[in-house]
Amino acid sequence: MKSRISCPTFIVKEDICRDNIRRMAENANVSDVIFRPHFKTHQSTLVGNWFREYGVKSITVSSANMAREFVSAGWDDITIAFPANLREIPEYNTMAADINLNLLTDSSEVTATLGANIKSPVGIFIEIDAGYGRSGIPYEKEKEIEKIIYLIDHAKQLSFKGFLTHSGNTYEACDTNEIKAIHQEVNEILLDLKKKFIGDHPDLIISIGDTPSCSILSDFHNVDEIRPGNFVYYDLMQYYLGSCKLSDIAVSVACPVTGIYPERNEIVIYGGAVHLSKEYLEQDDKFYGLLVNYTDDGRTEPIPVTRLISISQEHGIIRTSPEFLKTVKHGDLLGILPIHSCLTANLLKDKMIIV
Amino acid sequence: MKSRISCPTFIVKEDICRDNIRRMAENANVSDVIFRPHFKTHQSTLVGNWFREYGVKSITVSSANMAREFVSAGWDDITIAFPANLREIPEYNTMAADINLNLLTDSSEVTATLGANIKSPVGIFIEIDAGYGRSGIPYEKEKEIEKIIYLIDHAKQLSFKGFLTHSGNTYEACDTNEIKAIHQEVNEILLDLKKKFIGDHPDLIISIGDTPSCSILSDFHNVDEIRPGNFVYYDLMQYYLGSCKLSDIAVSVACPVTGIYPERNEIVIYGGAVHLSKEYLEQDDKFYGLLVNYTDDGRTEPIPVTRLISISQEHGIIRTSPEFLKTVKHGDLLGILPIHSCLTANLLKDKMIIV
Repeated sequence: MKSRISCPTFIVKEDICRDNIRRMAENANVSDVIFRPHFKTHQSTLVGNWFREYGVKSITVSSANMAREFVSAGWDDITIAFPANLREIPEYNTMAADINLNLLTDSSEVTATLGANIKSPVGIFIEIDAGYGRSGIPYEKEKEIEKIIYLIDHAKQLSFKGFLTHSGNTYEACDTNEIKAIHQEVNEILLDLKKKFIGDHPDLIISIGDTPSCSILSDFHNVDEIRPGNFVYYDLMQYYLGSCKLSDIAVSVACPVTGIYPERNEIVIYGGAVHLSKEYLEQDDKFYGLLVNYTDDGRTEPIPVTRLISISQEHGIIRTSPEFLKTVKHGDLLGILPIHSCLTANLLKDKMIIV
Repeated sequence: MKSRISCPTFIVKEDICRDNIRRMAENANVSDVIFRPHFKTHQSTLVGNWFREYGVKSITVSSANMAREFVSAGWDDITIAFPANLREIPEYNTMAADINLNLLTDSSEVTATLGANIKSPVGIFIEIDAGYGRSGIPYEKEKEIEKIIYLIDHAKQLSFKGFLTHSGNTYEACDTNEIKAIHQEVNEILLDLKKKFIGDHPDLIISIGDTPSCSILSDFHNVDEIRPGNFVYYDLMQYYLGSCKLSDIAVSVACPVTGIYPERNEIVIYGGAVHLSKEYLEQDDKFYGLLVNYTDDGRTEPIPVTRLISISQEHGIIRTSPEFLKTVKHGDLLGILPIHSCLTANLLKDKMIIV
């Protein structure tokens, strides 16, 4: 692997990746919930194909553009888990003519416009804001929810699929107990809604999505569908949240060493914001990744007292110990475990190697 | 313009862009310094071509990959302003056979390896760390600098071009006086080095590069070459540093409105970290961009008390006033002035419209 690489390269360990997929698929199976993984993390038709081997037939994406790519790769049951964008109705119509397409709405205005302009059957989830405060209709607004369901029921091509939420607030949790508590609260909110509307809509489902909840919980009681995405690769953010072990992180970025500075115990790598993204964590200080060495069959544990402390467009600065610094030479290849694998994978889409 | 756009799109105002280029070219001309603009900001062969009309013949890039793209577009005098990467020597050799290529070194090991492996004439700048602490040899290490020059002089294909620095610490400055002070200090360091080595190397030059210094100073006394990059577009970071006016910012990202939440005075746009990057500024609170409206001939000033306060992979949350919120409809197109145009341009390379 190492001899082929001259610039920052996204290294995907297939065995770790497949273990992550298999575990999540098994969990979904045991709980008897639909497993509709989010493909926004890997955005790769090749990695996408691995999921088929674990029984996955339906997927989630975050844009019409991404949906199109996976339609081309043969996927025919796709939820675009992003608020329906009225400017993309022509794209939705093109896809809905060929596949099972689900869209999200959180307003009666958008629902009415979809109803009047969608020309093939489309499933509609009502996105619920159960506390995260990003998109979705606040769960208390029952009159508005009723109005949206009425509009869906009276639109020729739309059918009501159920209630969907993304509990992104689990990413702010301090520990796994807090993640479980958030999940519990969200679940009760969705269950209340389900009880209220299932009489007239016996097929409606509840769909949840965040990787922290889906990784930490083993039982998805009262949920009908899960849509985690990040778990396929995991990353340091998930590790510090308690969603995964370091050895579950399937990806790293291989970066050439281009500078060694013993006077400040720092190494400069070719690897910056256009490769890793500017996502950071704060544990005492800000950092942008941890360092590993590549070995013949994988990689080492993170190098002790060593962090990627700063990044600019193409440069990364690693602060390390004098002992480790002595082992490094110009032109060596070091690995960075990313903070947020979704953003790193997006930046290095065309620079990926599977090992 | 607006009717064609359905997803986040990078809007480049050609007239502002050309004004920015013309002003910097004139400044360089008045000071009689070489103007070798950094093309890492726009990474566009089309925008690159505009520079030719203002007399630019030599350019700066930050990677071998970027150099290759501009070689294909007809540029034949290129400095790769990134520490020479020993893993890319084959790429350097391919380019050096056809064009005037300059590389950077800050160590005798790298210089020796280049000397032994570079097969066509290549110019070498010694990168000096004059206080920024990223790459470059600390300016006090004169023995090492002498050794590097010796190695360059005794390598068949290498020729010593001079001393180069990037004062990225100007980005941490509190005001324009601090930027001027940093520039002054850096300039004296480079001038000292020039005096010491010009006897044996009468053609050596001093090259500086940061947009804040190059924008704020009108006289580049004692400098031979400037390499600013960001000025072509500018952005909010430069505006808050005092390097430009808001009206000098040549770029914005057009984002569809996909959610309106009057209960929290927030709007959700289709526009997130994969479009804008996660770069932020802190003025009281963190923010990721300012909002403008598009008009028939351009855009408005930033909307008052309105900021992009949060971004995830594809979503952006704008907090605004009740008054402005009332004017917004689902499917509207709003503009975001980016924090750091280099990273935004890199993310939206394939989604650019020139107006």
